[in-house]
Amino acid sequence: MTRARRPDLAELERGVRAGDRGLLARAITLVESVRAEDREAAQTLVNALLDRTGGAYRVGLSGPPGVGKSSFIETLGCVLCDRGHRVAVLAVDPSSSLTGGSILGDKSRMVELSRRDEAFIRPSPSAATLGGVARRTREALLLCEAAGHDVVLVETVGVGQSETAVADMVDTFCVLAQPGAGDELQGIKRGILELADVVAVNKADGSLLPAARIAVAELQAAFHYARPRGGGWAPRALAVSAHERSGIDEFWEAVEAHRAAIAATGELESRRVEQRRRWLWDEIRELTLRRIEADETVRERFVALEDEVAAGRRTPGAAAAELVAALFPPRGD
Amino acid sequence: MTRARRPDLAELERGVRAGDRGLLARAITLVESVRAEDREAAQTLVNALLDRTGGAYRVGLSGPPGVGKSSFIETLGCVLCDRGHRVAVLAVDPSSSLTGGSILGDKSRMVELSRRDEAFIRPSPSAATLGGVARRTREALLLCEAAGHDVVLVETVGVGQSETAVADMVDTFCVLAQPGAGDELQGIKRGILELADVVAVNKADGSLLPAARIAVAELQAAFHYARPRGGGWAPRALAVSAHERSGIDEFWEAVEAHRAAIAATGELESRRVEQRRRWLWDEIRELTLRRIEADETVRERFVALEDEVAAGRRTPGAAAAELVAALFPPRGD
Repeated sequence: MTRARRPDLAELERGVRAGDRGLLARAITLVESVRAEDREAAQTLVNALLDRTGGAYRVGLSGPPGVGKSSFIETLGCVLCDRGHRVAVLAVDPSSSLTGGSILGDKSRMVELSRRDEAFIRPSPSAATLGGVARRTREALLLCEAAGHDVVLVETVGVGQSETAVADMVDTFCVLAQPGAGDELQGIKRGILELADVVAVNKADGSLLPAARIAVAELQAAFHYARPRGGGWAPRALAVSAHERSGIDEFWEAVEAHRAAIAATGELESRRVEQRRRWLWDEIRELTLRRIEADETVRERFVALEDEVAAGRRTPGAAAAELVAALFPPRGD
Repeated sequence: MTRARRPDLAELERGVRAGDRGLLARAITLVESVRAEDREAAQTLVNALLDRTGGAYRVGLSGPPGVGKSSFIETLGCVLCDRGHRVAVLAVDPSSSLTGGSILGDKSRMVELSRRDEAFIRPSPSAATLGGVARRTREALLLCEAAGHDVVLVETVGVGQSETAVADMVDTFCVLAQPGAGDELQGIKRGILELADVVAVNKADGSLLPAARIAVAELQAAFHYARPRGGGWAPRALAVSAHERSGIDEFWEAVEAHRAAIAATGELESRRVEQRRRWLWDEIRELTLRRIEADETVRERFVALEDEVAAGRRTPGAAAAELVAALFPPRGD
């Protein structure tokens, strides 16, 4: 197989269908490109592969820096590979382009998993906005499915709205936490727990074991009032130790129990349908914005209108009417 | 003052500025109209009055049917009027057009408050969609402010996503609950509590008093893990009785404490700025959708594309690109 600098679309499609990790990586590079001609090619590619998508179980995992997310994913990924799964790991990290370092940029953090033939690990794309990262990751997820990965883990750090973006592209959303000094979970924004289907309290080993157990018990109590996430599912909290490799099986059992619960009620499919509809509107919004930006007159007007709206000097309704009128020239009918 | 069937815009503007409740009601009828020419007039009117808006404190109140929301609002409204406030009560009830009866359609439920000169009560507009009701209510809220109301209560029932819509247009979001048979709050979707800045447990009187006290204690414990809603605010739970008129002062103190907390950090203003930006995008989306619907060819294409996207047969990116290309004819430059 040739490794030309720019494989053509047919080659990329064949490569992805064959599960070739090198060509999968190049296909993802194509969907991450912001160049207009690449965007068009990427759409063609992803569309051509759609018949092979939807088969993976999509699992989100959020956790603050230092919680041991890489070790946990590596351990989990290896366990799943041992069971015959083909695991892909993607990342959504809108801060990577700012800090210069992606949370998954250094593959050496997952040495063992990256050596497995069944695994594919991809760092977060560099993009200025969370929206851009999320859109590209949703397409990368489809490509991983088309390449035959039946488990896709989407990792994110607890910054900004990245958890919401990830929760909106997966079937099951998990949070990895660790006990703090007091009775708090360290580094966890409280709102994140409300998105969680499964919460794993890591570092349930050594001196932190008692604190981890208390945290799990408190979480279970708190989930009494937490949002049911469809399928009548009550979120689960459990203790894990990536270090001692304990609780990993129980974690995956909880993920599979969640999957079974939402699959049984049809929630799994209806959730994905809803995600696709929201994604369509995201794209329409993004493309509309680009049209606005591409037209200098309209762009200047939009910026001025948005400022006036934000300052409360013009109603959103009036501003939107003026803008949409400018965007859609009257048709001669 | 003439009460012509259709007062002109100048008359409506003068009437609202003068705090005339009859003309305020007619101005709100105008913003509720879905006729295209009325929409244009409504935008002109609301824009002309924008300099008088933003002065009210905007408070959302959600609660299931039977919780005693009307009695609570009536009691609270009268207390606030006694203190010199001018109170407006609006409702967001997307079910009203379906059931034929608005939650506030029967003003006789608030006999005492509706007799107060300082109060203005408006039922939910009849509109097919929550989005439509929410847009019109946001404009009605601005009109109430322009008419000199310094407290605007926006009421909603706990159906669908109406709480989210209301939480997105107010400064402080409150939930009215009541003790259930077990240790649950009756009729409260658990997710609602996560939006709440203040939760009032009603019917804290007679035989329900012990259960109400337990519910308040449990809520306070649950809020330990609840989302901080900006300004470092931890949600508060308290017991009230609209029947015995107890806890009303404490409720308003909690609302004012929340206001002070978010005002001190600048969160109040930044929240309103964010709400206006989201509102602008809602309007752009709505108007774009109307453009799509108005063009038969584009409409048919959109419906077909959305179905393909929902079914997973086409990527949202490709569908959006095709649609936006059809919407924006190439410019001759």
